[in-house]
Amino acid sequence: MAILERHDTGAIAHLTMTAPERLNALSDEMLAALQSELDTLREDRDIRVVVLSGAGKAFCAGHDLKQMTAGRQAEDGGRAYFADLFARCARMMTTIRDLPQPVIAQVHGIATAAGCQLVASCDLAVAAEGTRFGVNGVNIGLFCSTPMVALSRNIPRKHAFEMLTTGQFIDATRAEALGLVNRVVPADALAGETQALADTLAGKLDSAVRIGKAAFYAQAEMTMDQAYAYAGEVMVENMLDRDTEEGIAAFIEKRAPEWQR
Amino acid sequence: MAILERHDTGAIAHLTMTAPERLNALSDEMLAALQSELDTLREDRDIRVVVLSGAGKAFCAGHDLKQMTAGRQAEDGGRAYFADLFARCARMMTTIRDLPQPVIAQVHGIATAAGCQLVASCDLAVAAEGTRFGVNGVNIGLFCSTPMVALSRNIPRKHAFEMLTTGQFIDATRAEALGLVNRVVPADALAGETQALADTLAGKLDSAVRIGKAAFYAQAEMTMDQAYAYAGEVMVENMLDRDTEEGIAAFIEKRAPEWQR
Amino acid sequence: MAILERHDTGAIAHLTMTAPERLNALSDEMLAALQSELDTLREDRDIRVVVLSGAGKAFCAGHDLKQMTAGRQAEDGGRAYFADLFARCARMMTTIRDLPQPVIAQVHGIATAAGCQLVASCDLAVAAEGTRFGVNGVNIGLFCSTPMVALSRNIPRKHAFEMLTTGQFIDATRAEALGLVNRVVPADALAGETQALADTLAGKLDSAVRIGKAAFYAQAEMTMDQAYAYAGEVMVENMLDRDTEEGIAAFIEKRAPEWQR
Repeated sequence: MAILERHDTGAIAHLTMTAPERLNALSDEMLAALQSELDTLREDRDIRVVVLSGAGKAFCAGHDLKQMTAGRQAEDGGRAYFADLFARCARMMTTIRDLPQPVIAQVHGIATAAGCQLVASCDLAVAAEGTRFGVNGVNIGLFCSTPMVALSRNIPRKHAFEMLTTGQFIDATRAEALGLVNRVVPADALAGETQALADTLAGKLDSAVRIGKAAFYAQAEMTMDQAYAYAGEVMVENMLDRDTEEGIAAFIEKRAPEWQR
Repeated sequence: MAILERHDTGAIAHLTMTAPERLNALSDEMLAALQSELDTLREDRDIRVVVLSGAGKAFCAGHDLKQMTAGRQAEDGGRAYFADLFARCARMMTTIRDLPQPVIAQVHGIATAAGCQLVASCDLAVAAEGTRFGVNGVNIGLFCSTPMVALSRNIPRKHAFEMLTTGQFIDATRAEALGLVNRVVPADALAGETQALADTLAGKLDSAVRIGKAAFYAQAEMTMDQAYAYAGEVMVENMLDRDTEEGIAAFIEKRAPEWQR
Repeated sequence: MAILERHDTGAIAHLTMTAPERLNALSDEMLAALQSELDTLREDRDIRVVVLSGAGKAFCAGHDLKQMTAGRQAEDGGRAYFADLFARCARMMTTIRDLPQPVIAQVHGIATAAGCQLVASCDLAVAAEGTRFGVNGVNIGLFCSTPMVALSRNIPRKHAFEMLTTGQFIDATRAEALGLVNRVVPADALAGETQALADTLAGKLDSAVRIGKAAFYAQAEMTMDQAYAYAGEVMVENMLDRDTEEGIAAFIEKRAPEWQR
């Protein structure tokens, strides 16, 4: 069995981390599998939405501590390995952001440390009631510095600081209130609700969603004036898309659009 | 009847978009009327607060799609027109930010696409119960890229992304919880509560509010150290204002200030 | 009696502002005392957490308006004094951010103007039920421009603007919902709950917390890509800490870590 499974339902790719005995830890193998699949999806014009979930009891419990410990055997005490590991991990996380398709985290059980970062790095997240979130590396002396990059761009400053320094978990309801997840649903509705959200996105004009996702993250790091100059150009290109012309025409004529995509 | 009406109550200018049959769409004419009125208000030292509302069933439903579609008839397929349109729209939105006076959106019915952007662009917003907010351009293949600039500076990242990619509406209570509006009031109290908020602001020392508003947006785009250096200078100028001297003296002497303004 | 008292409980330093008759105003003397104590704490490796509170009815009511008014007697009308005052105040606020140890505000009564800024400037805040927060300088003609720098980095934009321009207070529950404080507890539990939070932080590996706090604020002002490059380096150094190695080993072996610290 592969460490990462993919099955598609129409235009939706479902990626499932399948190392439940290790709580889907982001081992070297898992990071490589995720990176590879994301790189493949980037080029796949038939896929419009990606859903990421975990098999077993947990969504993802973060880095593989045993593997990291083994890395200490190198002559440099692991320095080169660790630097490479965190670079690979950050690359995978930012590949989610840079992917043309929206990525939805389907979260249950626990999402901790780099697993919590994975939720924060997805564009959207649906969580089962009872899911617990934490950036708890501080409890073992390893502050969640890289998870912090994604987390602190999702939730308010003081609450992020509290999670990072106390290592305490928050539940799904709290995660929703803070902005870490979009929706909380009963556990037995998790797959269905996530699918419904994915279906909603997959039903939109693909080119518009791709344009919009890229613009969303790009403008977030600009001043407002820069952002408007940039977003204005994006809107012009979007308007000149033949399918957008059809979408607007259909709206005016009160009929369903016939998109070529 | 003008497309934009203005009536003043004391130091408060009320601007009302009056194209109810088009849900107060931001047509070329509406954008021009708003820009012109804002430019006039900028120089009007007697006006201390601006309230922006819409006549009819809706606050504002965004761009005028029929007019935009007509723009496609040009030789370039509308490219030049669209670029100019989005530039004029962004200019109007940032003029609200750059206006010396605070601008309060008085919102009811629906505020969608660029209409939702208009709410996000105002300094403050009061919404009637039942108001619905959306950046729903994605539903017709036109991602709300320019509205996103304002929206994503008002509400948390994942919730902004959800609104933009699903096109789904949120209600006023949700909008308040996310930070898009300040207060939600019963529909029949909307005008009164907005007036009360405007009266509160109009009762402050005008020069202090002007200083503060400009500083608010300027410092938001600086690092914290830059922001403190800048805000410190602003505070010094504020302290040296004769009316501020009187305000502080009156406070110490437990009497009402006698401001010259 | 000193204007600022310090007593330590183990690795926790408790700083108490003790000018209750002036609602612990940030006078020249109070700013100097805070700066001096913070500078001392910076070098104190035995202290892992700092708790800041106020004696009497209030946490802190902001600047000392009588002292500021006296400053107007100078030949320049106070310009040089005010510039120096705001620079010293901002320096004290940013010293909290730059302190290696986390600083927890233990807040009760009122926290207004620069007193509200002080809460916003601490890394964490616990508030007693009934505490009122405001940036109410606008009421006397002095817009809270420097408090705004900290406040607007804690709470959503429109709500910050409302507090600054209306001068109205919010209660502790609202402050928690907006992100200005972490927790609200009954007044008689304030000291105990703050102590418990401080104990939690003091129980973590000191070096990891120090690394993390510095990285938290540094990465907040970077682009995401810069932040990941930086945080990755921080994680590598953290991994190579002998105590972190022990923390991870202990976790894998399911035993308590034996940290040297």
